[in-house]
Amino acid sequence: MVCGYNGKIARIDLLERSVKIEEPEELLYKKYLGGRGLGAYYLFRDLAPKVDPLGPDNELILATSIITGIPIAGMSRFSIVTKSPLTGTFGEAEAGGHFGSELKAAGFDALIVKGISDTPVYLWIQDGKVEFRDASALWGKVTKDTQTEIRRQLNDPLVRVALIGPAGENLVRYACILNELKYAHGRGGLGAVMGSKKLKAIAVRGHTRPESKEPQRIQQIAQWMATHWKEYPGTVNRSTYGTADALMPLDTSGLLPTRNFQGGSFADAEKVSGETMKATILTGTDGCYACPIRCKREVRAHEPYETDTAYGGPEYETIAAFGPLCEIGDLSAISKANELSNAYGLDTISTGSAIAFAMECYENGILTNKDTDGIELRFGNVKVILQLIEMIAHRRGIGNLLAEGVKKASEKIGKGSNHFALHVKGKELAMHDPRGKAALGLGYAVSPSGADHMQAIHDPAFVKPVKALESLGIIEGLDPNSLAPNKVRAFVQAHLWWGLLDCLGACKFIFIPHGAGVLTPNHMVDLVNASTGWEASLWSLMKASERALNLARCFNAREGFTAKDDVLPERLFEELRFGSRKGAKLDKGQFNKALQLYYEMMGWNRETGTPTTAKLDELDLEWVAQAFHPT
Amino acid sequence: MVCGYNGKIARIDLLERSVKIEEPEELLYKKYLGGRGLGAYYLFRDLAPKVDPLGPDNELILATSIITGIPIAGMSRFSIVTKSPLTGTFGEAEAGGHFGSELKAAGFDALIVKGISDTPVYLWIQDGKVEFRDASALWGKVTKDTQTEIRRQLNDPLVRVALIGPAGENLVRYACILNELKYAHGRGGLGAVMGSKKLKAIAVRGHTRPESKEPQRIQQIAQWMATHWKEYPGTVNRSTYGTADALMPLDTSGLLPTRNFQGGSFADAEKVSGETMKATILTGTDGCYACPIRCKREVRAHEPYETDTAYGGPEYETIAAFGPLCEIGDLSAISKANELSNAYGLDTISTGSAIAFAMECYENGILTNKDTDGIELRFGNVKVILQLIEMIAHRRGIGNLLAEGVKKASEKIGKGSNHFALHVKGKELAMHDPRGKAALGLGYAVSPSGADHMQAIHDPAFVKPVKALESLGIIEGLDPNSLAPNKVRAFVQAHLWWGLLDCLGACKFIFIPHGAGVLTPNHMVDLVNASTGWEASLWSLMKASERALNLARCFNAREGFTAKDDVLPERLFEELRFGSRKGAKLDKGQFNKALQLYYEMMGWNRETGTPTTAKLDELDLEWVAQAFHPT
Repeated sequence: MVCGYNGKIARIDLLERSVKIEEPEELLYKKYLGGRGLGAYYLFRDLAPKVDPLGPDNELILATSIITGIPIAGMSRFSIVTKSPLTGTFGEAEAGGHFGSELKAAGFDALIVKGISDTPVYLWIQDGKVEFRDASALWGKVTKDTQTEIRRQLNDPLVRVALIGPAGENLVRYACILNELKYAHGRGGLGAVMGSKKLKAIAVRGHTRPESKEPQRIQQIAQWMATHWKEYPGTVNRSTYGTADALMPLDTSGLLPTRNFQGGSFADAEKVSGETMKATILTGTDGCYACPIRCKREVRAHEPYETDTAYGGPEYETIAAFGPLCEIGDLSAISKANELSNAYGLDTISTGSAIAFAMECYENGILTNKDTDGIELRFGNVKVILQLIEMIAHRRGIGNLLAEGVKKASEKIGKGSNHFALHVKGKELAMHDPRGKAALGLGYAVSPSGADHMQAIHDPAFVKPVKALESLGIIEGLDPNSLAPNKVRAFVQAHLWWGLLDCLGACKFIFIPHGAGVLTPNHMVDLVNASTGWEASLWSLMKASERALNLARCFNAREGFTAKDDVLPERLFEELRFGSRKGAKLDKGQFNKALQLYYEMMGWNRETGTPTTAKLDELDLEWVAQAFHPT
Repeated sequence: MVCGYNGKIARIDLLERSVKIEEPEELLYKKYLGGRGLGAYYLFRDLAPKVDPLGPDNELILATSIITGIPIAGMSRFSIVTKSPLTGTFGEAEAGGHFGSELKAAGFDALIVKGISDTPVYLWIQDGKVEFRDASALWGKVTKDTQTEIRRQLNDPLVRVALIGPAGENLVRYACILNELKYAHGRGGLGAVMGSKKLKAIAVRGHTRPESKEPQRIQQIAQWMATHWKEYPGTVNRSTYGTADALMPLDTSGLLPTRNFQGGSFADAEKVSGETMKATILTGTDGCYACPIRCKREVRAHEPYETDTAYGGPEYETIAAFGPLCEIGDLSAISKANELSNAYGLDTISTGSAIAFAMECYENGILTNKDTDGIELRFGNVKVILQLIEMIAHRRGIGNLLAEGVKKASEKIGKGSNHFALHVKGKELAMHDPRGKAALGLGYAVSPSGADHMQAIHDPAFVKPVKALESLGIIEGLDPNSLAPNKVRAFVQAHLWWGLLDCLGACKFIFIPHGAGVLTPNHMVDLVNASTGWEASLWSLMKASERALNLARCFNAREGFTAKDDVLPERLFEELRFGSRKGAKLDKGQFNKALQLYYEMMGWNRETGTPTTAKLDELDLEWVAQAFHPT
């Protein structure tokens, strides 16, 4: 059972209820690969500037890649690309699970959805056919009930469903899209776009997988991996404790975002760790298509927070956002928060961040009981978290304000609340603090979709041994706190690599340059060529990633974003107030210098941060330069 | 029997007769690989600006690479790097043969020779030891007698000798260095540098080859290649007819440089073709270490031009330069010219070009019988060729003027003779006409060492199928005559690839992106990693090549070279006067635009063509930026 690409893309208009199948040339796949790259291509081409993200002209693009679903761990992710209602920028998120490979088996590489349906609708995609189905009865339902009902209607328990909950329907600006109720296209409000289109769900079932050119080679690598992955301690850790394996090391090193990024260590860290989860509430594990590592958790929280295992257990980001960030040390409560977020379809990072923001405003008297309907929005107040999730999802009371995201909320609140709004371009910071991994700060600042840990998941200085980064051209040891030229250079390379994984729908954890991982970038080249019969190399693939990044950057430039938007929240230039790295901060002068050097290394205009015509020409993006004249 | 690198470099001072062994860190090899890259590193570091190329402070750097001598075809080349006395720029040439792998087995990756010996000397390098030996009795001898005598003195017929002939001793500015009497480091006057140092030869013998990390992987690829190379028609052609296989196709397509680049077809082309050579004077073939293809020829020319097989047969470049370029249709005479050039140690391309230049001057009355001691320097005058080779090598009569190269000669002659001097930065054009392969023109212009076909061997538009270029990121069909952005982009990628081969000491003909060839760039990655145990990728290797190119460019900038030196001879912007492409020319406006776009794509200053500080930072060349401040 192997996979490649179909050469078919479905354009779906929800208003007209029309479907158009496009069959792009192979060249398009060679240039854009899939995922973020293919999405960026269509989004830039199709959208006029200044389109309303929640209007009919915005597109929701679900894109698999040329390797999605090949039978080996870590290759089943897919991207959803749109103009983000949270940031107004290029918006993109990836998720694993089973939907991507199923879409492929149904005959499509990508779906491009536009328009707004008159009445709630879901799509039923089965073996090359696209059907519009009434979702009126599903509107308002939580995700599990929706999935159950759709599977019942279609009479097939193996239908894979990407869907939204009430939060998406209510246009919460950080509503997510889920598949299997727990694999989230979390960030940037993609669920609100789906909600704005009155599209409750996309159900998919397929029975024909495109064939790879060299299935034996893929099988070889898969078998090697199945035999050897247990020799990689980082990967074993992830398998044992899930992504929450990261929590204790971050706490110890003083980089666990705590109390809305005021400090870097949390007194109750151990109580909410992956180790504690395993020892207490863990009931099972789950994983993406073809993956033996199974980093997904399944939990049953303790009284009074009984949880439904169907929604999975909290990941590191979720624990950190509802836990340390809000100073909550109760893993069962956090698991409940996770369940509610998945049931309502909320991004846990932005939700936790919005709550922490509100807490800090409250504690500083900027929000009062009058604003909160009497809710005591104090750090550590565990009940408040669950209450606020409900209120945000349904846009009730203070929840309506927080549903806008911390940037817009702080603009409405005023009174210096912007100082507590930790975001880049409106996207709340992920649960990683750059005051100790400086390249991450650069990554937050320059990511085309705001402060996103999938775009800048790591400071390469933390990857050991250095050899793991060698194929990316990073061959020297690095200082985590530095943003000297060698660090900026390393970030450029690593950033392109991470971006490549998002173009290919590949899991970052599987690859050694993440720090843990099993496969090398050269394995990735092998897998691409074995799938497609191409003669790709890491050079040509990294260039494709650079192409995707430049396209996203140009999309933003066309929307009016410039260097002035590549800024970090002030708090990151202030000292950490507690934890083992107390006193650490980013140096603003060094950061600004690094930012400018980054632009120049990327071949972008030094002042505006916009790709030059020559850079676009070099990347085979003359059509973008011509449409746009960025210089 | 396998090979890698030793981690040892010998610094040899000829004046002081001292030898210092340096043991660089592995990191240095990772950054610079070897060959052109390693040479550029040392040349930029060691030389002060404006050093006299023929003075004691110039260095002659013989550099193998991290894979030189691994037991597979095409990996035995090595570079010699110096400041060129012909161009005043970064000077470099590569040659195959057996010297490189022997040097490796003798325990060294590179030799760095400086100073001037009081009396003629040769170096005897044997298993880690460097000895200075008197060469007074060898001074003035032709190359074969020198090699014979050295082997006799050292009592070992397997000693490999790199040496110069009388041309090098007489400081002919395009004297070459030969090994095995026929593998030439031909271009740029490296032999004159050797001569200026009173260094007649370097003899080497070694018995210990460093071990590869994965010899089986190398053997696998070698075996695959040994079995399959005959399935590649281009490679079979090369094996059958030598490099002269290119002559007839170029003639047919109107791109065979004829009559000093006045036209592109030669009436007697067939008489001097590889096919004719095989049918008439060929007596055998020869090849580099471990190569089954054996593109080297062995000939015995017909009366009255009896030749010595020891000097090999003429390559394509040699045939073209002494043949069509001078309108000589006698293959035996050309073979004799080849023999004389190899005996005296002259670069055949520059020698033929200097003669053709003189012929055109003579026919236009700019040189007269008074200047030529009565020699009738007309195109087609076969006797003149052999006479002039003697005169140039010994700097006799008009030969003394021509020994300066066409640039300096035309400056001395004046009278508009510069119009007949076809060179870039003083280096005579190789035997490929850009009026029909436009990217080659760009390559001539921007090559750091002048008009060099090893730096820009091909217009990528001629490589079929396009798939052969895919790993370099070139995925679309190209127009040979265009210098549109897509062509400039393709040139950037291809240029880095060719440069990589010169950093690795790899043969361009072995690789599919040459158009013929057997191996892919991904094979190269495999070979590097199997040799070294590194985790290199085509990305990291191409970046290393870019590093080498930028270093060479900075070397030139420090010497005062700028964009104004990246010019082509006017003739290339004028119409071809005859042949099937009659009327074809390069468009100057398009060329200049492409040049500027090239600078920008490379991250170089648009006006000066010098690498920006940001580009140097990106390439791990902060030390160059700091030493130099190019912006």
